[in-house]
Amino acid sequence: MCRTVILLLAAAVVAPAQAPDRALSGFRGESLAREQKLESGMDGLFSGQNQQEWMKRMTSLPHHVGSPGSRAVAEFIAAQFRSWGYETSIETFYPLFPTPRVRLVEMTAPEKFTARLEEPPVEGDATSSIRQNNLPVYNAYSTDGDVSGELVYVNYGVPDDYKRLKEMGVDVKGKIVIARYGGSWRGIKPKVAAEHGALGCIIYSDPADDGYYQGDVYPKGGYRPPNGAQRGSVMDMPVYPGDPLTPGVGATDPKRPPDPKQAPTVTKIPVLPISYADATPLLQALGGRVAPEPWRGALPFTYHIGPGPSKVHVKLEFDWKLAPAHNVVARMTGSERPDQWVLRGNHHDGWNFGANDPISGMVAVMEEARVLGELAKRGWRPKRTVIFLAWDGEEPALLGSTEWAEQHAAELQKHAVAYINSDSTSRGFLQAAGTATLERFVTQAGRDVTDPETRASALDRYKARRKVRGQEEDLRLAALGSGSDYTVFLHHLGIPSLNIGFGGEGFYGVYHSDYDSYDHFVRFVDPDFQYTVTTARLGARMVLRLANADALPLQMAPVAKEVNQWTKEVVELADRMRKDTQKENELIRTGALKLAADPRLTYVAPDPEGEVPFLNFAPLQNAAARLERAAALVDKVDPVKLPAGKAQAFEEALRAAEQKLLRAEGLPRRPWFKHVLHAPGFYTGYGVKTLPGVREAIEQRDWKEAEEQIVKAGETISGYAEWLEKAAASSQAGL
Amino acid sequence: MCRTVILLLAAAVVAPAQAPDRALSGFRGESLAREQKLESGMDGLFSGQNQQEWMKRMTSLPHHVGSPGSRAVAEFIAAQFRSWGYETSIETFYPLFPTPRVRLVEMTAPEKFTARLEEPPVEGDATSSIRQNNLPVYNAYSTDGDVSGELVYVNYGVPDDYKRLKEMGVDVKGKIVIARYGGSWRGIKPKVAAEHGALGCIIYSDPADDGYYQGDVYPKGGYRPPNGAQRGSVMDMPVYPGDPLTPGVGATDPKRPPDPKQAPTVTKIPVLPISYADATPLLQALGGRVAPEPWRGALPFTYHIGPGPSKVHVKLEFDWKLAPAHNVVARMTGSERPDQWVLRGNHHDGWNFGANDPISGMVAVMEEARVLGELAKRGWRPKRTVIFLAWDGEEPALLGSTEWAEQHAAELQKHAVAYINSDSTSRGFLQAAGTATLERFVTQAGRDVTDPETRASALDRYKARRKVRGQEEDLRLAALGSGSDYTVFLHHLGIPSLNIGFGGEGFYGVYHSDYDSYDHFVRFVDPDFQYTVTTARLGARMVLRLANADALPLQMAPVAKEVNQWTKEVVELADRMRKDTQKENELIRTGALKLAADPRLTYVAPDPEGEVPFLNFAPLQNAAARLERAAALVDKVDPVKLPAGKAQAFEEALRAAEQKLLRAEGLPRRPWFKHVLHAPGFYTGYGVKTLPGVREAIEQRDWKEAEEQIVKAGETISGYAEWLEKAAASSQAGL
Repeated sequence: MCRTVILLLAAAVVAPAQAPDRALSGFRGESLAREQKLESGMDGLFSGQNQQEWMKRMTSLPHHVGSPGSRAVAEFIAAQFRSWGYETSIETFYPLFPTPRVRLVEMTAPEKFTARLEEPPVEGDATSSIRQNNLPVYNAYSTDGDVSGELVYVNYGVPDDYKRLKEMGVDVKGKIVIARYGGSWRGIKPKVAAEHGALGCIIYSDPADDGYYQGDVYPKGGYRPPNGAQRGSVMDMPVYPGDPLTPGVGATDPKRPPDPKQAPTVTKIPVLPISYADATPLLQALGGRVAPEPWRGALPFTYHIGPGPSKVHVKLEFDWKLAPAHNVVARMTGSERPDQWVLRGNHHDGWNFGANDPISGMVAVMEEARVLGELAKRGWRPKRTVIFLAWDGEEPALLGSTEWAEQHAAELQKHAVAYINSDSTSRGFLQAAGTATLERFVTQAGRDVTDPETRASALDRYKARRKVRGQEEDLRLAALGSGSDYTVFLHHLGIPSLNIGFGGEGFYGVYHSDYDSYDHFVRFVDPDFQYTVTTARLGARMVLRLANADALPLQMAPVAKEVNQWTKEVVELADRMRKDTQKENELIRTGALKLAADPRLTYVAPDPEGEVPFLNFAPLQNAAARLERAAALVDKVDPVKLPAGKAQAFEEALRAAEQKLLRAEGLPRRPWFKHVLHAPGFYTGYGVKTLPGVREAIEQRDWKEAEEQIVKAGETISGYAEWLEKAAASSQAGL
Repeated sequence: MCRTVILLLAAAVVAPAQAPDRALSGFRGESLAREQKLESGMDGLFSGQNQQEWMKRMTSLPHHVGSPGSRAVAEFIAAQFRSWGYETSIETFYPLFPTPRVRLVEMTAPEKFTARLEEPPVEGDATSSIRQNNLPVYNAYSTDGDVSGELVYVNYGVPDDYKRLKEMGVDVKGKIVIARYGGSWRGIKPKVAAEHGALGCIIYSDPADDGYYQGDVYPKGGYRPPNGAQRGSVMDMPVYPGDPLTPGVGATDPKRPPDPKQAPTVTKIPVLPISYADATPLLQALGGRVAPEPWRGALPFTYHIGPGPSKVHVKLEFDWKLAPAHNVVARMTGSERPDQWVLRGNHHDGWNFGANDPISGMVAVMEEARVLGELAKRGWRPKRTVIFLAWDGEEPALLGSTEWAEQHAAELQKHAVAYINSDSTSRGFLQAAGTATLERFVTQAGRDVTDPETRASALDRYKARRKVRGQEEDLRLAALGSGSDYTVFLHHLGIPSLNIGFGGEGFYGVYHSDYDSYDHFVRFVDPDFQYTVTTARLGARMVLRLANADALPLQMAPVAKEVNQWTKEVVELADRMRKDTQKENELIRTGALKLAADPRLTYVAPDPEGEVPFLNFAPLQNAAARLERAAALVDKVDPVKLPAGKAQAFEEALRAAEQKLLRAEGLPRRPWFKHVLHAPGFYTGYGVKTLPGVREAIEQRDWKEAEEQIVKAGETISGYAEWLEKAAASSQAGL
C-alpha cells in the first residue's frame, strides 16, 4: 500500500471512532431512519400464539428424519412459507440412517437384570404415550454388535479417565464400559472406549447431570425422570458430519447401497444410551475400587469401578437404510443485491416430539418469516435476498443441512452473506456464538431487543450477568464448535455463522427424550412463549439488518483480537505442558507419586512423558500481528462513503473474506474441516477447539505436526490479512 | 543490646548454620550418641498386640464421662501406669454434664413421621447391641426445649448461608432449621440459627459427607450407615471450654447446684443430631425454592429449602448433673531437671465405645508409657520429668483437661515444657499441628520413624504427598484451633503444644457414632495396629527427646515466619474485602445483581456494606519485623556451649517464651482465650483463626476494634520479641 493511501485513510473516508449508542452498523442517514422505523413498526407484529399453535402441531407426532411425521412437518412449514409469500421448495436428500431392530442390555451376573430401554408415559404429558413411529432410545450410527463382558465404570469416558484407570490398574480390554453423559460430546465415549479395546459401550444419564440432583423431575419439575434416557448421534462427526457415505457431496441418489461398512464415521463398537433407572442395578453391582470423588454421580450408593462382578450382554442390530431428508427452502429475492443471500434457519426434525429441541427455535424462525412476509405485503422489499431454511435430519448427523450445503457449495460460497441458526430457545439470557466479524452486529441487535420479563434490553441483562460473574461486560461471541446446522456453513464453507437464542432460566433436563414435549415446554421451558417471540424479534432484526444495510456490517478487529488471544493460548499451552511434564516426570522419577499412593490399593505410576520442546510459534505470531494491522486498516474504511463501484467490490471482498481462512486440504486426518481458526474437538466433540490444527497437535504431543500446523495456520492467516490489506487499499486507490 | 554482644553472637557461641541430616536439636556429642542408641534399642519394644488388647478391653463398654465405663477405664489405665513404674493418681473434677431424658423429633405435616434417633445393632459388630449405659444420639449442652415450626434447610448453617437465604427471601425467624454436618464445627450451627431467630435446630449427617457417597457403608465398608448419627458437643466452646459453670478455675466441688441457667455456653435453642435415614422424610417433604447447587448433598431427591410444608416438633429435656471426670496423671520424675515437665496425653472418654476416637490415640500414649517404663527398668532415667495424662470428659467439652489445667495453671506455666496430644490415629500419613517453635523438632521425629506399609520414613511419605499436591515439601505445623485437649494448654496457658498422629488412609465415616467400635477399627481403620504402634514410636521419640535433651529443642524462626505470613494475610484480607465491597456495592447500586437474577424467583439484593477503610497495620508490621530479627538472634545462641548457669537461664527464658504471647484480658468477648496468635474461630469453631483479635474484627467489619486489636497484637508480639532479645543478650553478656 502506498503512503498516499494511508494518509487518505486517516482523513476523509473514515468511520467515526465511537459509534453513538443507537447506531446501526452499515446504515447511514436516510436508510438508518428507515430501518429504525421499520423495526419499531415490526415489533407489534410478533405473536406467541402463532408459535404456540405451530409448536403444538409440529410436536404432536414423532418427526425424526425418514418418518411420516418429518415429511408432514416439512410440508406444513413449506405451506406456511408459501402462504407468507416466499418462493418455497422442499429439497430432499437420501443419507444413510439406521434405526434399531434389536436392542438388548442385560446383566447376567451377579444377578439377572434386563434393562427396560423405554420411556414410559407420564401423567399430564399427552404425547408420551404415543408409540407409533416412535424412535426408541438408541444412539444413531452405533455399529451392530453382540458382545458380553465384565462391566467397567469409566466416568465420562474421555481420554483423561482412561489415564486414571491405568493408574488404578484397570484395563477395559475385552470389557464393556459404562460411561455417564457429560464431560464431552457423547460420540467421543464409544470412540475412546474402542481405542482402549472395549467391546461395547453403555452411556447413562446420571441424575447429577440432569436428573433429581438438578431439580424436581418430570412431571413434578422439568428434569429427567428415572426412566428418561438421552437419544443421540454417536457418529464420528469431528471427522465429518452428514451422510457417512458421501462426505463433501450431496447425497442425492436414493438408490445407492446403504452399506455401513463403507462408512468410516460409524462407531467401532456397539453403544446404547440408558436411563438411570436402568443403570442403577448395573452400577450398584460393580465391585473393585471405589470411584475417585470427581467420578461420583448422584445415585444413592457408593460408585465402584469394577471390573465386574457385573457381567453385561449388549446386543444391537440396526436397519441400515437411506432415509429421505426433507429440507424446506424459502426465498424472498432481494431488490438491489439479489446475488447476496442472507440465510436463516434451523432444523425441524426431532428425537420424536422435540418441543424445545428443535421446535422452539423453528417457531422463532417461522414467526420471523411470517413477519417479514407481512412487511413485504405492506410494500417492503429486502435489498438482499433472504432465504429461510428448515432442515431435516439434524439430530442423527446434521444430515439435511450438510447435504444441502455440500450440494450447493459453490453458489453458497459465491452468494452467502451469513448463516444464522437457532436450535433451541428458552427463558433466560441472550445467547450468541459465532463468527467474530459479527460481534458488533450481534451487540446492536441484543441492545434493541427487550427482555420480556425484566423489560430491560436483552444486552443489558446479558451484561449484568457477565458483570456479576466478574467477566468483561461486553458481548463476546464464543467460537462455534459443532452441534447444530451451522457446522457445514462455517467450518466447511467459510460462511460467517451465528447461533442465537435465549437460555439459562428454563428447567430443562429432558434433552433428546420423549419428554421434550409440548406439555413439558409450556410448563417448564418458556410457559408463555415470551422467549420464542423474543428470539424471533432478535432474529428478524438480524435478518432485516443484513438484508437492508447500505453496507454489510462486518468488522474485522474482533477476528484479529481472537487470533491474537488464541495464539497466546497455544503458546501458553505448550509452556504449561512443558512445566507440567517436567513436574510430573520428576514425581515419577523420584517415586513421589508411588510413595504418596495408598499402599493397599493398586497404583501404577505412569511412564514419563517425553519432554516438551520449544516450538517456533513465530509464523503464527507474525501472522496474528499482521492481521491486527490489516483489520484496523479495513475497519477504517467507511464503505457507505465510497463510490458505488468501489463500495461493491469492497463489500464483496469483505463478504468472501472468511473463506480465506479455509485451507483446501483441511485439518490433519479430517479434510472436511477446512477452517484454520476453529473446529469441533477431535476428542471433545461439539466443544470447540480454536486454532485446532496447532492446538490439537500440541495436546496430542505431536511436535512435528504442531510445527507444520503453526506454519500452515500462519500462512493462512497471513493470506487472510493480505486479502484485507488489498481490500482496504483498492477501496482507497484513486480517491 | 550493646554492639559487643552482637559481635560475640556472630563469633564463638553460634550453632552450625545447617544441621546435618541425622542431627537431633538439643543434643550434642556424647548425649547425642546415647540418645540415638537409646532410640534404636527402643524400637523393638513396641507391641501392637498390647494395643489391640487394651483397645478391645477399653471399648467393650460405653465409657463416656460420668459412666461406670469411664471410671473403669480410668482405673484400668491408672493400674497400667502404676505397673510400669509411674507415680500415678486419679484426679477427679465435677463439671456440669447433661444427659438426655426426652428426645423427640417428629414431622407433623405434610405427613406424620417420628424420627428413630437410634443406631441399630449391626451384624458383626459386637458392641453395637449394648444398650446399658449407652448414651443415645444427642448434642451435649443443648438447652431444654419444646418447639414446633416450619422447617427450613440452611445448608451448613454458617453465616454465609443465612446471607444467601436472605437473598432468596427466606427468613428462619420462628422456624426450625435443619443443617447438615460440615462447613463448621457443629456448635456454630445452633449458635448462628439462634442469632437469626430460629426456634430449634436439627443437624443431620448427609451421606455426601461421610456416608455412601464417600465409600461403602458399615458393615460392608467403613462409612456411616443410614441410621448412623453423630453425637457431639454444641457448647459455645469458642467462648470457653470446660465446665460451663467454672470458667478459669477447676471444678472441684461436687456439691454445687448444677444450674444450666448459669451457664452462658449452653445453646440458646434446642438442638439434636439425626441420621440421614431420619432426615430423609423431613428433607424430602420440603417445598419452596430448589437449594443452590453447593447446598445439595447426596440423598436421592431434589433438595429444597422450604420453609415448609414440613412442620416439625422438637422436644428435648436433659438431666443436668455434675458428673465426675476422672483424669489419670502418671509421673516419672526427672533426674536432672525435675522442675521441667514434659506432658503427653489424650482423652480416654468416648461417645460410648470410641475405638478410633479416642482409644487409638490412647493406646499409643499407653504403649509409649509402657516402653519408657521398660527403659527405666533397664536403668534409664529422663533428665526432665515426664507426665502421662489420660483425660476424661473431652467429648462433651474438653472437661477433664480444662479443669485440671485450670486447677494447676500456675504450676503448669512454671514447669511445663510442652504438651503433646494424640486424639485419634489411623492408616495414612504423618499428621502434626501445633506450636511453630517445635517445627524442626517434629521434622526430626518424623524423619526417624518408619512408615510401616511403605518402609519409607514417615517424613518422606509426608513430603511425597506435599510434592504431589504441588505444596512446599517441608513439614509445616499448622496452627491449632480447638477440638481436643491441647486447647487449655495452648490458648489459655501459653504452653507449646502439639497434636500428632497418622491419618488419611483409613475408612472412617462413623465419627461419634456407636459404630466407632473395635470391630470397625480392626476392619477399616488400622487393621494390624501398625499405625497405633507407629504413633507410639513417634510420640515416644518426642517425649524422650524433650526429656533427655541437653537443651530444649525450641526454634523461634518459624514463629517469626508465621507471624509475618499472618500479618500479610490480614493486610490482604482487608484489601480484598475493600475491593470486594466496592465491587459488590457497585453491583447492588447499578441493579446488576437484580437484573441477573431469575425474574420468576424471589431475589432480595443485599444492602450495600459500608466501605472498608484503610487500617493502620504498622504496629503489627513493625512487631513482626522486630520478631524476625529477635528470633534470628536467639536461634543463633547454642545453649549447649553456654556455661551452666547461663544455659539454665536461657533455657528457662525459651521455655516460658510462649506465655509472652498471652494477653491477660484475652480476646474480645472471650477472655479465656489469651493467645494473640491463634484461637478457635468465633464462627468456625474448631477451625483456627490466626491473629484472631485482628482477623475476626476485620471479618466482622468492626474497624474500631480491628485498629485496637492491631495495636494490642503488635504490643504483645513486640513484648515477645523483646523477651527473646533479652534472652539472647543475657546469654552472651560477659562471655
